[in-house]
Amino acid sequence: MKFATYDDGSIDGRLLVVSRDGRVAVEAAAIAANLLTVLQRWRACEDPLRRLSEDLNSGKASGAFALDTARCLAPLPRAPQWCDGSAFLNHFRLMERAFGTPSIPDLETIPLAYQGASDDFLGPHADAPFVSEDDGIDFEGEFGVVVDQVEIGAKPDEAADSIRLIVQLNDWSLRTLAAREVRKGFGFLQSKPSTSFAPIAVTPDELGSAWRDGRVHMNLHIARNGERIGSANGGEMTFSFAQIIAHCAGTRRLKAGTIVGSGTVSNADRATGSGCLTERRTIEMLDLGAARTPYLGFGDRVEMQARFADGREGPFGRIDQKVVAAR
Amino acid sequence: MKFATYDDGSIDGRLLVVSRDGRVAVEAAAIAANLLTVLQRWRACEDPLRRLSEDLNSGKASGAFALDTARCLAPLPRAPQWCDGSAFLNHFRLMERAFGTPSIPDLETIPLAYQGASDDFLGPHADAPFVSEDDGIDFEGEFGVVVDQVEIGAKPDEAADSIRLIVQLNDWSLRTLAAREVRKGFGFLQSKPSTSFAPIAVTPDELGSAWRDGRVHMNLHIARNGERIGSANGGEMTFSFAQIIAHCAGTRRLKAGTIVGSGTVSNADRATGSGCLTERRTIEMLDLGAARTPYLGFGDRVEMQARFADGREGPFGRIDQKVVAAR
Repeated sequence: MKFATYDDGSIDGRLLVVSRDGRVAVEAAAIAANLLTVLQRWRACEDPLRRLSEDLNSGKASGAFALDTARCLAPLPRAPQWCDGSAFLNHFRLMERAFGTPSIPDLETIPLAYQGASDDFLGPHADAPFVSEDDGIDFEGEFGVVVDQVEIGAKPDEAADSIRLIVQLNDWSLRTLAAREVRKGFGFLQSKPSTSFAPIAVTPDELGSAWRDGRVHMNLHIARNGERIGSANGGEMTFSFAQIIAHCAGTRRLKAGTIVGSGTVSNADRATGSGCLTERRTIEMLDLGAARTPYLGFGDRVEMQARFADGREGPFGRIDQKVVAAR
Repeated sequence: MKFATYDDGSIDGRLLVVSRDGRVAVEAAAIAANLLTVLQRWRACEDPLRRLSEDLNSGKASGAFALDTARCLAPLPRAPQWCDGSAFLNHFRLMERAFGTPSIPDLETIPLAYQGASDDFLGPHADAPFVSEDDGIDFEGEFGVVVDQVEIGAKPDEAADSIRLIVQLNDWSLRTLAAREVRKGFGFLQSKPSTSFAPIAVTPDELGSAWRDGRVHMNLHIARNGERIGSANGGEMTFSFAQIIAHCAGTRRLKAGTIVGSGTVSNADRATGSGCLTERRTIEMLDLGAARTPYLGFGDRVEMQARFADGREGPFGRIDQKVVAAR
């Protein structure tokens, strides 16, 4: 199943079921008003939504219309929690060098994740507002999962069973502020503005064999002003989503609808490029002696699109946003 | 005005308006189903709620009943965000010594705050579940404010105008995990289980002159198993709530209903005791050479109650919880 959310002025938006090809949608208000409600009542909603999805895919759903992603909010405009991992250790090792932070001893045994804000996500084509170009405006291309309620102390296999949806996202980051916040140890707050999401959230079966080992084995194509930045594969996560979820639920439950992120997609093979500008700048420093790629400025455009290994477009749709000055 | 939330099985609970003496309440369903809705629609709800509150206080409200705080959830069982400051630098300086973390250069000019989870707050008498007594189970007595929507880059005076409610809370902390997480720089995640709240949220006018300079000038009395731990005054914040709010909104807006915390209440005068066990243990280490006070164990009871300077009970009601094993 594939879901999107239209803006209807409400906080959680209006639920749409989207066709397999991503072109057609139908309202699902008779089943649930919005996607958050679906996640809170998954058991009751799943079967009727599957029937509606099948009707839509076979051309039998009444009221079907062409999906306009310009009208889409994030699939979940707000979520109970947003916990973002940093599961691509290739990226993390490079970032350690960039920020000069001391190496973490248990990096390969305990997943690393931070608590993000989850009240105000951006849709795929919304302008992304920032206060200052001096803050080191950067993107982070990621995959994420949306879970059912996860109990305290859940093991990774229970955590795996809690995964309901997969999403594609851009964890906007402000690098100048992040360096300061990481040094203080209290984590990211000012350095993580609202996160953006591709328009379509999908059940894991929509990915076929690209969803395996609790990882999204798809390439995340990222461009800045049309220039390719990277197309790294999501399969190289050191920790699976199940392991990251279990970590996040280690001492408290996660309410249904919580989103857990992969961290910036990154591969050891440098030919795949980077999932964020900081990683690219770090590689430039290491290879060329100095960073050459500037951070983002107002007016810059960032596109992200997942593709299957054979080049087919992924099911999430595109993120295509412009960086703008706030207010 | 004073508000509480009864558990009715819904996520946000059922809104009650509480009398000035805290003993009597009345349902406010005709105005708003729950307190989160009130914050999202403050302008429309404020006047009718004030009239209901006045009717209740003058004995004219129909349907009034005795408030049973055992039925109370947190005033906001979930909130859009939970951003917790660390505005009592006396506490922070002691904690730096305890954790051996390097001193932060801009500690007195830039407020420090972390992003907490806000999906699953605990009520004032709910058992507080923890996975292991080895995690260093501790409390943190704090005050907090609940804000209306705050725009990106709001200045402290705009932030001050956004304050709608004041709350009293216990930011449960797991010190063993916190030390590890602070070292990693990604902030608190496993080390901050669900936060607990006193039953009654109040508008600032209910505090009279105890609310001034953007600070709560009340003593927070804290006891563990009946033994006094501290009664520090909330007025000694280095940063006002307005400054902390402005910091949190520095790069992204805060949605209405966001809760901003003071950090552990702490005073330079050691006679006031401590707002958490770690601070007390740190003082023991400094004064006696070793920490003597153990962290909490299963079965321990933690009480918190704010009082005015003249000893009168504060308007928030009591937190009185038992530490229990999860599952």
